[in-house]
Order: sequence, then C-alpha cells, then structure tokens
Amino acid sequence: MLDHPLVPGDTSAVEKGPWHYGADYVTVYFEADVSKLSRLVPRPFEVETRSCMAYVCEIVSVSDSAAEMVSTSPERTLYYEAAVGVNCRFRDKIGIFFPVMWVTTEWSLLRGLINGYQKRLADRISLTKLHPLNPGLGSITAGTKFAGFCVKGIETTLSVKVEVQKRGVPSDLPTFGSTFGLRRFPRTDASQESVDEPVEILKSNSRVSDVWIGKGTVQTSLDIGSPVSLSGAIYKSGFTISGSRVLGR
Amino acid sequence: MLDHPLVPGDTSAVEKGPWHYGADYVTVYFEADVSKLSRLVPRPFEVETRSCMAYVCEIVSVSDSAAEMVSTSPERTLYYEAAVGVNCRFRDKIGIFFPVMWVTTEWSLLRGLINGYQKRLADRISLTKLHPLNPGLGSITAGTKFAGFCVKGIETTLSVKVEVQKRGVPSDLPTFGSTFGLRRFPRTDASQESVDEPVEILKSNSRVSDVWIGKGTVQTSLDIGSPVSLSGAIYKSGFTISGSRVLGR
Amino acid sequence: MLDHPLVPGDTSAVEKGPWHYGADYVTVYFEADVSKLSRLVPRPFEVETRSCMAYVCEIVSVSDSAAEMVSTSPERTLYYEAAVGVNCRFRDKIGIFFPVMWVTTEWSLLRGLINGYQKRLADRISLTKLHPLNPGLGSITAGTKFAGFCVKGIETTLSVKVEVQKRGVPSDLPTFGSTFGLRRFPRTDASQESVDEPVEILKSNSRVSDVWIGKGTVQTSLDIGSPVSLSGAIYKSGFTISGSRVLGR
Amino acid sequence: MLDHPLVPGDTSAVEKGPWHYGADYVTVYFEADVSKLSRLVPRPFEVETRSCMAYVCEIVSVSDSAAEMVSTSPERTLYYEAAVGVNCRFRDKIGIFFPVMWVTTEWSLLRGLINGYQKRLADRISLTKLHPLNPGLGSITAGTKFAGFCVKGIETTLSVKVEVQKRGVPSDLPTFGSTFGLRRFPRTDASQESVDEPVEILKSNSRVSDVWIGKGTVQTSLDIGSPVSLSGAIYKSGFTISGSRVLGR
Repeated sequence: MLDHPLVPGDTSAVEKGPWHYGADYVTVYFEADVSKLSRLVPRPFEVETRSCMAYVCEIVSVSDSAAEMVSTSPERTLYYEAAVGVNCRFRDKIGIFFPVMWVTTEWSLLRGLINGYQKRLADRISLTKLHPLNPGLGSITAGTKFAGFCVKGIETTLSVKVEVQKRGVPSDLPTFGSTFGLRRFPRTDASQESVDEPVEILKSNSRVSDVWIGKGTVQTSLDIGSPVSLSGAIYKSGFTISGSRVLGR
Repeated sequence: MLDHPLVPGDTSAVEKGPWHYGADYVTVYFEADVSKLSRLVPRPFEVETRSCMAYVCEIVSVSDSAAEMVSTSPERTLYYEAAVGVNCRFRDKIGIFFPVMWVTTEWSLLRGLINGYQKRLADRISLTKLHPLNPGLGSITAGTKFAGFCVKGIETTLSVKVEVQKRGVPSDLPTFGSTFGLRRFPRTDASQESVDEPVEILKSNSRVSDVWIGKGTVQTSLDIGSPVSLSGAIYKSGFTISGSRVLGR
Repeated sequence: MLDHPLVPGDTSAVEKGPWHYGADYVTVYFEADVSKLSRLVPRPFEVETRSCMAYVCEIVSVSDSAAEMVSTSPERTLYYEAAVGVNCRFRDKIGIFFPVMWVTTEWSLLRGLINGYQKRLADRISLTKLHPLNPGLGSITAGTKFAGFCVKGIETTLSVKVEVQKRGVPSDLPTFGSTFGLRRFPRTDASQESVDEPVEILKSNSRVSDVWIGKGTVQTSLDIGSPVSLSGAIYKSGFTISGSRVLGR
Repeated sequence: MLDHPLVPGDTSAVEKGPWHYGADYVTVYFEADVSKLSRLVPRPFEVETRSCMAYVCEIVSVSDSAAEMVSTSPERTLYYEAAVGVNCRFRDKIGIFFPVMWVTTEWSLLRGLINGYQKRLADRISLTKLHPLNPGLGSITAGTKFAGFCVKGIETTLSVKVEVQKRGVPSDLPTFGSTFGLRRFPRTDASQESVDEPVEILKSNSRVSDVWIGKGTVQTSLDIGSPVSLSGAIYKSGFTISGSRVLGR
C-alpha cells in the first residue's frame, strides 16, 4: 500500500524519523523592534527580546532508518534552507520561533510541516561555497565574504551577507534556547477535525564546528524594520530531530 | 500576522476557498487487475470495478476571493498535474480515489493535502500543446496525437498517450461518481493530536467542452499490472472545489 | 554520430529549421530616451526613434521536419520568452533589435543564439493565463488585466502589465520593420576563428489574431530611463523563421 | 553596452577567462567496444583504446577576474556536471573527448560551448554528499557508497555508482592525456560564416586530493554497449582553463 504523502513511510514524501542533519550556515544575528517582531510571532509565543537570526544554509539530511539514501536517492538527502528566527518565550521557556523557513525540496517542506516548522517552498536558494582545490579561491581568512539568498516568485525573500573577521568557537555563537513551532492542519469543512498545537522541536546530538565570526547584514521581505547590532558567522552544524512535543493546549 | 503555510489566508501558501479550476486534459481510461488496484486504494475505500483513469493536464486555478491573482501573481494561478485514479466505493457511494496526484507548485501541493488529495511534488510535468497560429501545426483532426508525462527524481512516474479519432461530447467520457480522498496529518510524538479521515471532495460547477475521443496508452511507476480496454480523450474541464466532507470515522 | 549541441540535427539541442512558432503575447509599447537606448543597441545598428516594445509570452514551437515532437517530446515544443526590443536601423533598413531575450529552455536559447538573437536563460517566466471553463474567471472584456514577468537570479529582469480596453485588429499593433540580430561566436584563444555578423532574421508566415488593446506599464533591469507614451496589447501571433541573412561585414 | 551572451564580459553569460574550477567527483572508469565508441567520437578524433570514464560532480567555478562572485552572485559560481569521456587521439596526441557533457547552469553551458565542450543543459543532476557533522552519517570508509545521476526530459542520461574500498593517491587515477573538443558555430543561411575547429582545452594548475578507489557501475543513454573492466573513484580536483587551442583545420 502506498503511504500517504504526509505520513512517514518508505513510499511517503517523508521517511520515518528520527532525522539527522548536517549543515553549512551563513548566519546573521541582529536586533529588531519588538513591535515589528510581535507581528511575526503568533500566540501563544511572546517576543522575549529584540534578538533575531537569519540564515541561508545547505543541508545534508537522512532518516535514521534510511541513511543509505545518500547513495540510492541522493536527491532525497540534500536541500537548501533559508529562515528568519525570533527570540521568544512560551510561559517560562525561552526559545526561537521561525515565522517562515524556505526550503528547496518537497520532503523537507512536508517533514517540516508535520514537525511544526512554518515551511514554504523556495524557487531558488543559493549561498557562497568555496572549494579547497579551486586555484582562484583562497582559504577562509579575515575578510572573506559569504552570502546567501532566497527567491520566491518575484521576491528575494531573504538575503544575508557575512564578512568574517576571525576564527571562533561554538560558544561564540548566540544561543536562543528551545526551538518552537506550530503544528497546524486546518479544516476546509465543518465536518473535519483539525490540529492546532504549539510545539517544541525535539533536537538532540547538536554539534558545531568550523566557526568564523564577523560582520553581517540582512534584508528580508518580512517586516523587521531596520535591524541593528548586526553580526555574522559561518559554521557547520549537525543535529538530530525526533519529532516535536506539544507545549500546551 | 503571517498566516501558517497550511492555513488558508492572504500570506499562506493556500488562499481561502472555494477554489476554481479550468484545465486542459490528456486522459487515458483503462482497466486493471482488481488485486493490483486493491494495493493502491487504502481503507475504508474498496475497489469497485477494474475501471481506472490516468491524466496529465495544465490547470488555471484561482481562489474565489482572489481571482485577480491571474495578473498580480500569475505564478500562483497556473500549474501542471498528473494522476492515476481508481474506481472504488465507500459503503454505498461510488467514486474515484487517486493514490497519488503529482503537481508542480507548492500551493497546489498544500491545498490538495488539506482537502484530502494524496499530492506529491513533481520535478517536471509536460504535455502536448497546440497553437492555432503556429504555421507548422494543423487543427485537431482524426489522428492527432497528444501525450503527457511526469518526472520525479529518476522516474517517469506517469506517461499517457492519446490518438484522437473523432469529436466527442461530454457524455462520451466515462464517469466515476464522487471524488474520494484521505485527510491525514500524523503525529511525530505521542503528545500530539492527529487527523485521519476519509473525505469526499466537494466539487461543483462542473463543465466539460472540446472533447475528442480515441485510443490511449498509459505507463506508470504505480503497479497497475498490464492495463487493458484502453481508450483516450482530450477535453477541457472546469469546476469548483469548496473543501471536503468527512465520510465517517 | 551524435550531433554537436549547436549544429541542427536529430540529436542536437536544435532541430533542423525552418522553425514554426505560435505564441500568446502580453506586450507593452513605449518610448524611451534615445541616449539610454543607444547604450542598449550595438553597432552597426543605430537607434532610429524612441519606440520600443517589451513582452512576455508563451510559445509553442516546432521544427518543420519534426512537428510530431508536440506529442513525442512535448517538453521540446513549449517555452516562455521575455524580451525588450528597440526600434533601430541598419543603413536604410528599419527594424527592431532585442538587446536581450530571456527564454526558459536550452533549445530555444541555443536556436536563438545561432540565428542572432541575444538570448539568455531565465530562471522563471510567468504570465497571465485565463481558461474559458474556470468558473471564477470571466471572458476577456474591457478592464481585464494581464501581466508577465521574468526572474533571473535575484533580479526581476522584466515585468509588463496590460489592462485591455477594447478589441483590436492586427493593424492596431505598432510595427517595427525587420528583426535584427547579431550572430557572434568569440575566440577564447588567438588560434581560433570567430563569427561576428549583423543579421536580419528571416521571418515569414506572419499572422496575428485575438487582439485586445489598452494601457500598459513596464519595468526592466535594462536601463531604459522613464518610459513614456505607454500602451499595451494582448494577442496571438504565429510565424516561421528559416534562419538569418547577413546584413554586411 | 550590454555584452553579447556568448562574448565574455561583465554583462555576458560568460565572464572573461581564465576560469578556475574546484570539483568533487564520483567517477567510473570502464572499457567499451571500440565500434560503439567510434560512433560517439567525431572526426578528426579517432578512438584510441577501449578506455572511457563517466562522472557526476559538483563544481565551484570562478573567473580569474571575478572571484568575488562567490559572494556577490553565488548562483553564478556553483553548478553540477555529468559527462562520459572516451580515450582517443588526434594524430599523435592522446586525449579524451566528451561526446556530451550535461550541466545545470546557463553560464557553464555557454562557457563550455565557446571552449569546445559538447555541453547540454540537464534538467537535474544529483550526487551523493556526506556531511562531517551529520549524526546519521559516518566518515568515508571501505564500503561507503556514492552515486550520481543526470536527468534530461524523461531520460536518465547518466547514472554512476561507486563503492569505495580504500584510500588512494592521485596517481591511482587513470589518465587520458589532453582534453579534446570541437568548437562549432553553424550557418543557418548561406550568407553566414561558420566555425568548425577541433581544439585542445588549455588546462593548467591541475591538482587532485581526497582520493578513494573501489568498484563502479555506469548506465547511460549513450550507446556504449556493455561496459567491462569497471572501477570507480571519488576525489576532489582543481584546475584552470584559459581557453582552447585549435589543433588543425
């Protein structure tokens, strides 16, 4: 029997979790007006501080049950992602909520939606990639510039730029606490049931490496006003997501 | 506030319904082994006959509340679709269930999923299009050939070919009764709620025109065995979908 | 033997000509500063007047020798095109030169380049399409709005909008004379030969139908200053291109 | 003035050379019937041995004059490539000719064509990518599997699979001598000039690293019969191309 596209399984758009991720990030940290940010963060989450982040990244991802797909279906294991995140809280729990997270594949779109991410499909996401053997490109050094963008329709929904200044360590990167989300599946008729639940993404196995920190700029189609206190970083990160836990009803 | 991607609204991936459709179809009708078909149709639906259809089409679709998007966001009003449908029943109600329906845009994917269609994102869907002023192409006549295909990853998931033999009328086309679907939104953790409900798509305003009928062939990555009793048709069709009604729990 | 990608043949990217076209256009006519336009038109062409056009269209195209490809390879017979054209002259001959013409397929890109069009590959071209059976869309009438755009990288390279006011006839559409182009194939080493020749595209079988005329607006990444005297039209057009004749050396 | 799409320049599809490359390869080496191979290699090249290679790779490429594009236009510096190469000779010179080389971007397509590569645009190229921080993926070790494929239309034009067995060194990789090509720009009318010249690609700065060798398999839409003596490798490679030298007329 074919799996339903949203129900994890071998013939679904989504393999069974947990799902493992390894990503190369170009990230900008910034502050924005709480009044603007409050319009990007739905209840029951509340904007906590002015702190935000925006990133563009390339992700290699596999299901725990099907890591061999990197070679049997490589197109099911690589995608690009771009997102803006806002520091907020749910009751006493501090975290980050991503008002929108653009991705380039069906399976990352649908996997994200069932876990509570507000995912959208991008037309195109692109970011700086260097190569150690390219004779025209040097190694990363102070002054090396990175950038990434996301296009959807006629809009550049996100553009980030980072000029690195020095090597860093994982603890140099700002942290935002838990990762929040909203699982929603709406009615299209009164006879139907629906789902509407705030969640915390269940992340584990987090590790970060290859950190460089520096200056950053960000532009987005989301209304964040004029971002200030900007900084930037590039780094690799890995983690595992097993699902998401409901925070309350 | 930004809408959730799945919750119909101005900033969602899905506009508020009802949704109107106008499509150009290349369709093949065929029969297949009930034992094969039964593995494509999940409970509570039961395969009724050996009758099936498969089509590739181009669709112009607008929300009732935002028909102006054909000019303000034309990329949100045109998509391609390919599907295989199986005649089946739910209790006494006869209908058609589509084990999978491939589409080319985010909004048709997500709109379909909330209405109960088992939609997947195609990499590419293409079908024969003629043009009345192209000096190298004549008008449709007996013997004109049409075709369409859908590619996803390395698979041609569906390929249909129709050679028309004569003009037809809408009543020449086989009918399948209601359109069935399954609305599912799974748990990724025991704390979550889920949705799992068989539905009937709420279709109205159906009209068909420009019918030509003839011979057809079909190939698909779905296991339908060796299709027999093949025929084909091309036609235009329009309809409205307002949502989907739960059939039972 | 495999054909070279640029040399017309069965296994080339380009089939043998002549090539037939049938297209649905959304076109804006406008005037711009001759000083701006002169920077878009290379020698030996000279800007003749302030008259320009910009369009977005969908094209069904077949080679004279392989019209059956509409059903055997439909993806090789449909593409989208967006372009800006400038009225100019070569000696006594009046015509139009397109500084850039964006298209969505390999074969239209390469076919155009060997005929002398300055073609580029777009990431996405989209334009208004209506459908006669869509219950949410009426027939074309005074006030119906059409639009089209072309995106490449992070740029919307062209956006046209037309609001039709009344039916027209083919003779209502401005004409520009011949279609000019530049066939160029450069050296990448002194040992190589090169081609650099101004040409006139050899067009025949021109026919136009379904004309509606009205108001128009245009925005483009090309520097055309502030366009004035804007009007717009939608129409169908068909023609044949057999190659291009060298105008002089 | 806008550059012609094929003439290297700031506003062309092709930046001025030399061009630098850094790539990650999944490569299969094999032997095939000389009679089959001879139908893939045009005069004046002659098939020398039964030796062939096929690869899928990801390439970071920059122009020597615009290496900053990795951050200003990252979409202009990354592409995917898939190709089959045949060992052959031109008079006394031994080399490799690629009957077709599929790529994913306009600029790699057109840059290749002016240098003499028989490039075609792919719909999709995908290959195995690992990530050092992905918790579900280990490091490369004996038995790690890599794969890559290229899809164009409904065809998987190339599929390669490599299972690595041990670390290697650059000298473990078969060599093929010079890289041959054919620069062709055809006439579409008798009045036009044309280019038709065999060339040797001017490559320098070659370096290879991160070699693993093992078993390999290949499938392609090119008629290579039944490949034998298969082996595989993965590796990184960097090089510079400055253009191509004409071999004779």
